[in-house]
Amino acid sequence: MYKDVQFEKYMDTVYNRLTNGGLFLTVKGSRPNTMTIGWGGITHFWGRAIFIVPVRESRHTFGLMEDSREFTVSVPIRADVRDSLNFCGTHSGRDFDKFRELGLTAVPGRRIDTPIVGECELHFECGVVYKETMNPKNLIKKIDDKHYPDYHTMYYGEILDCYLRDPDAQ
Amino acid sequence: MYKDVQFEKYMDTVYNRLTNGGLFLTVKGSRPNTMTIGWGGITHFWGRAIFIVPVRESRHTFGLMEDSREFTVSVPIRADVRDSLNFCGTHSGRDFDKFRELGLTAVPGRRIDTPIVGECELHFECGVVYKETMNPKNLIKKIDDKHYPDYHTMYYGEILDCYLRDPDAQ
Repeated sequence: MYKDVQFEKYMDTVYNRLTNGGLFLTVKGSRPNTMTIGWGGITHFWGRAIFIVPVRESRHTFGLMEDSREFTVSVPIRADVRDSLNFCGTHSGRDFDKFRELGLTAVPGRRIDTPIVGECELHFECGVVYKETMNPKNLIKKIDDKHYPDYHTMYYGEILDCYLRDPDAQ
Repeated sequence: MYKDVQFEKYMDTVYNRLTNGGLFLTVKGSRPNTMTIGWGGITHFWGRAIFIVPVRESRHTFGLMEDSREFTVSVPIRADVRDSLNFCGTHSGRDFDKFRELGLTAVPGRRIDTPIVGECELHFECGVVYKETMNPKNLIKKIDDKHYPDYHTMYYGEILDCYLRDPDAQ
């Protein structure tokens, strides 16, 4: 049901899904919450594989991430979860239990205490080792004008586990 | 001689070379300078493809980058440039004209005014749109103890051009 994978082989898939529909970024809390991300990526720092994910300070996820210091990223490969991604990109976890609302399955993580979105095939479990709060003065004006205020914090999550899981095996 | 490529198809290659021997990070100046990077990666922010490269404040490249706000990344695919990468990872451009010292070819960029390392096959031309100066208090102690002081600045370079070039066609 689970298959360990080398994430290097899925970097193009992750980038493709990230920029076409988005990925699920999930954090734990009094109830787990997932949001849609369309920005971020897999990098390498300090001899570690690092998944960088951006979260705006206004988001419900922001407070949860500050507390939990860990997250999962779930990537749909063949799964049709476009409607759920659209919902999670436009609704706050303050107002909805998104897993319940959308009938998504919170499957327990293998290495960390944060669930994955069971409807997806590819999953990353990450522990935050660093974060950057965006500094507006270091950003070009064109981007600043278009996308801010409400700046992002870039969370650098070390990839602790990466695997495929059959979404039909709920 | 030049072939435009979609960088998405080379993300695994870039990650592999980054973490095995390194890539050339080149900046312009009174003379162009190249250094070896083993950290960084291709991400997506603000609807743009972004190559993040880290540069320590002590490096000769740091001052050049602050002035030029652009850089190239040259990736060896089949080229055997291990000795040059080793040299560029351990010697400063303050003391050496590395292109001359190593017999590397500074081929003019296509979109920006910074050269590429002609001995490599795959090239990225990037314009800096954002930078982050690392904040030690947001880093876990284990990494801080092992790799710092002399913190990195993370330069976010929008990928403006990506292409293959035959290294034999000098």
